[in-house]
Amino acid sequence: MTVPSSLQQLIQALKVLPGVGPKSASRMAYHLLQRDQAGAANLAHAIEYAMATLSHCRHCNTFTEAEVCDICADDERSRRQLCVVEMPTDLLMIEQTLAYQGLYFVLMGRLSPLDGIGTKDIAFERLLERASDGEVEEVILATNFTVEGEATAHYLAETLRARGLKVSRIARGLPVGGELEHVDPSTLAQALVERRGL
Amino acid sequence: MTVPSSLQQLIQALKVLPGVGPKSASRMAYHLLQRDQAGAANLAHAIEYAMATLSHCRHCNTFTEAEVCDICADDERSRRQLCVVEMPTDLLMIEQTLAYQGLYFVLMGRLSPLDGIGTKDIAFERLLERASDGEVEEVILATNFTVEGEATAHYLAETLRARGLKVSRIARGLPVGGELEHVDPSTLAQALVERRGL
Ligand SMILES: [Zn+2]
Ligand SMILES: [Zn+2]
Repeated sequence: MTVPSSLQQLIQALKVLPGVGPKSASRMAYHLLQRDQAGAANLAHAIEYAMATLSHCRHCNTFTEAEVCDICADDERSRRQLCVVEMPTDLLMIEQTLAYQGLYFVLMGRLSPLDGIGTKDIAFERLLERASDGEVEEVILATNFTVEGEATAHYLAETLRARGLKVSRIARGLPVGGELEHVDPSTLAQALVERRGL
Repeated sequence: MTVPSSLQQLIQALKVLPGVGPKSASRMAYHLLQRDQAGAANLAHAIEYAMATLSHCRHCNTFTEAEVCDICADDERSRRQLCVVEMPTDLLMIEQTLAYQGLYFVLMGRLSPLDGIGTKDIAFERLLERASDGEVEEVILATNFTVEGEATAHYLAETLRARGLKVSRIARGLPVGGELEHVDPSTLAQALVERRGL
C-alpha cells in the first residue's frame, strides 16, 4: 500500500511553506481534500494570482501591484529620510505608529551567513543605489534586534557611512508603560546604555 | 498604505490551512513570493492536480486515484475483518506493522459534537453499509484513544453490535519495551483492566 502519487505530491509541495514538516503537511493535505475543497481551490488560485500581479516597487522594493507603491508615490512624504526594514510587515508596523513621514526601503530579508543568506540574497545593491540618489540625507536602520538583524544593521551602517550618508538606528529600551521588574536584563542594560540627556 | 489586494487574498487563502493564523499566513505568503516562487507555483499546481485526480475508494473511503484502492483490490487480503480508522495516515501506520491482513474503512474524521462534527460529517452511513456486506465478520475499531476517538468508537460499537456484527477495539497498555516507571497513570490503569489471562 502506498499513498497515491498526487496526494504524495501535494504533501511534498506543502512542505515548502516555512515551519511545515512532514506531519503538518500531511494534516494540511487531508484537511484541504476532505474538509475544505473550496478553500483549497481558492488557495491555488490566490498563489497564482499573487505571483502574476505582484512585483517589487521600483523605489522601495516592497510588494506592489503597480510599478511604484502608494508610499513612494505619495508627494507629501519627505524624500530626505529612508527607513530600512527587513520585510513589508515591518514597514506596516512603522506606518501604524503614524510617527514617520519619510520613505522606506524593504530588504526582503536579513543577512544570515549561517543560513547562506548573504548580500546577494537581499536587496543590498539596490539599497546602496537608492540611498545614493542625492535626496536622501539620513538612513534609519530599523532591522530587527535579533542576531541577524543586528549584524545586518552593522554591515549596512558601515557601507552607507563609507558613502558619506548619515546613518541612525532605532532605539532599544523599555516599552511604553514598561516596568523594570518585567523587562529582560539585556533590554534593561541597553536602556541604560542608550539613556538620553534631559 | 495598504497591503496590495492580491497579497491580502493570498494571506487570507493560506489561513484555511489547519494551525495557520494571520501571522504565519503572512510569513508563508512572503516566503512563497520572495524566496520560493518555484515552490509556490508547484504548490498551486499540486493542489489542483490532487483535487482533480483523487477520489474516495468505493469500498474503504480512503483517497485513491483509481475507483478502488490497492488494498481493497488485493485478493490476498481477508474479507472477514474490517478495521475502522479515522484517517488515511492511521491506515498507513497499521499497514507498517505488517500485523493485519484484513481490510479497512477510513472514516475521514471523528465524531466531535463540540466542533459540530456529527455522524453526517464522517462516513458513518457508508461504514454501516460496508460492514453489512455479509462477508465482514468482525469490525475492529482503531480510532484514536482521544476523547473524540473514544466517543466515536463507543458510538460505532453500539450501532454495529445492534446490527449483529462482532465488534472489537484495539488494546491500550504499555508500549513494547515500556517501563512502568515511565508510563502515565491512566495508561497503566488501563493496562491492568485489560490484562490477559496466561
Ligand atoms: Zn515603494
Ligand atoms: Zn479501498
